[in-house]
Amino acid sequence: MRVLGIDPGLTRCGMGVVDGMVGRPLTLVDVNVLRTSSGLPVPERLVTIEKGIDAWLDEYRPDAVAVERVFARSDVSTVMGTAQASGIAMVCAARRGLPIALHTPSEVKAAVSGNGRADKAQVGAMVTRILRLDAPPKPADAADALALAITHIWRGGAQSRIDAALAAAGASTGSIPGRVRR
Amino acid sequence: MRVLGIDPGLTRCGMGVVDGMVGRPLTLVDVNVLRTSSGLPVPERLVTIEKGIDAWLDEYRPDAVAVERVFARSDVSTVMGTAQASGIAMVCAARRGLPIALHTPSEVKAAVSGNGRADKAQVGAMVTRILRLDAPPKPADAADALALAITHIWRGGAQSRIDAALAAAGASTGSIPGRVRR
Repeated sequence: MRVLGIDPGLTRCGMGVVDGMVGRPLTLVDVNVLRTSSGLPVPERLVTIEKGIDAWLDEYRPDAVAVERVFARSDVSTVMGTAQASGIAMVCAARRGLPIALHTPSEVKAAVSGNGRADKAQVGAMVTRILRLDAPPKPADAADALALAITHIWRGGAQSRIDAALAAAGASTGSIPGRVRR
Repeated sequence: MRVLGIDPGLTRCGMGVVDGMVGRPLTLVDVNVLRTSSGLPVPERLVTIEKGIDAWLDEYRPDAVAVERVFARSDVSTVMGTAQASGIAMVCAARRGLPIALHTPSEVKAAVSGNGRADKAQVGAMVTRILRLDAPPKPADAADALALAITHIWRGGAQSRIDAALAAAGASTGSIPGRVRR
């Protein structure tokens, strides 16, 4: 499966595309950080982010989109822009009927490093190892977006096996396009 | 001028369209509250809000859009959804090149009632009087959206006169489509 991971932000919005499945080596398809100037009005910045995400959805046609879950208790100075950018990311994916998953930063850190409190350097190092890259993706938003995609593939794999087992038992909970799988 | 006021929210998103200009009676064109169920995934709810706003922009073709400015220090349980809905509202307007203004709740209360700390009932009563309605618009989100549109017309009128004076003095600060006018 192919997953687009999005680390939402108004100033820097990380996007990473990863191909793969549980139990096989994962592959980096592309990674980028959308940047918008803090000197521009917020509506213009959000439209730039929407266009950037739409362009990647068109180009890479992922099977699912993983977005970092934003909390109100995050840094107050950036949380509103982050929430707005995450809303745009979800709408871009939902308009296309793609499955959307929200993963918390702790879930992502735990998935890639085994430690829910891992720091940026550890996450970057693990993403580099998992995707067999020559160097950690820079800036951190790029590594975070890839870590989200990796997390989704690994968690989604487990979820798929649970779904299959339930379906075999006659109680399907198959994923529904546009639904958030927690 | 015709203004669409939007009181953003995930559960209830108020939309009110008002026609008029400073110094003349203002006219209610339409008012509605978009509702989305808290039982649905956030991406689906945001797409419903996007469609509702786009439909009104198509139908009423406002000259400007006024959106309530959301603060991170607002109610934590709803602020993330409110921020996401406000982001969608801004993107819908900015995609069409419409001027977008953000007004704080205090600015709106002060504009319609003369008191920046007016309560919901006072705002509803003043909206009823200003638009010569038979009864206050219900729910409060409907009245708030109309109050935003009224505020924009009245403040915009003052801004237009300032712009005209500055232009006459050779220092134009004319509004730019898609720009946030503070």
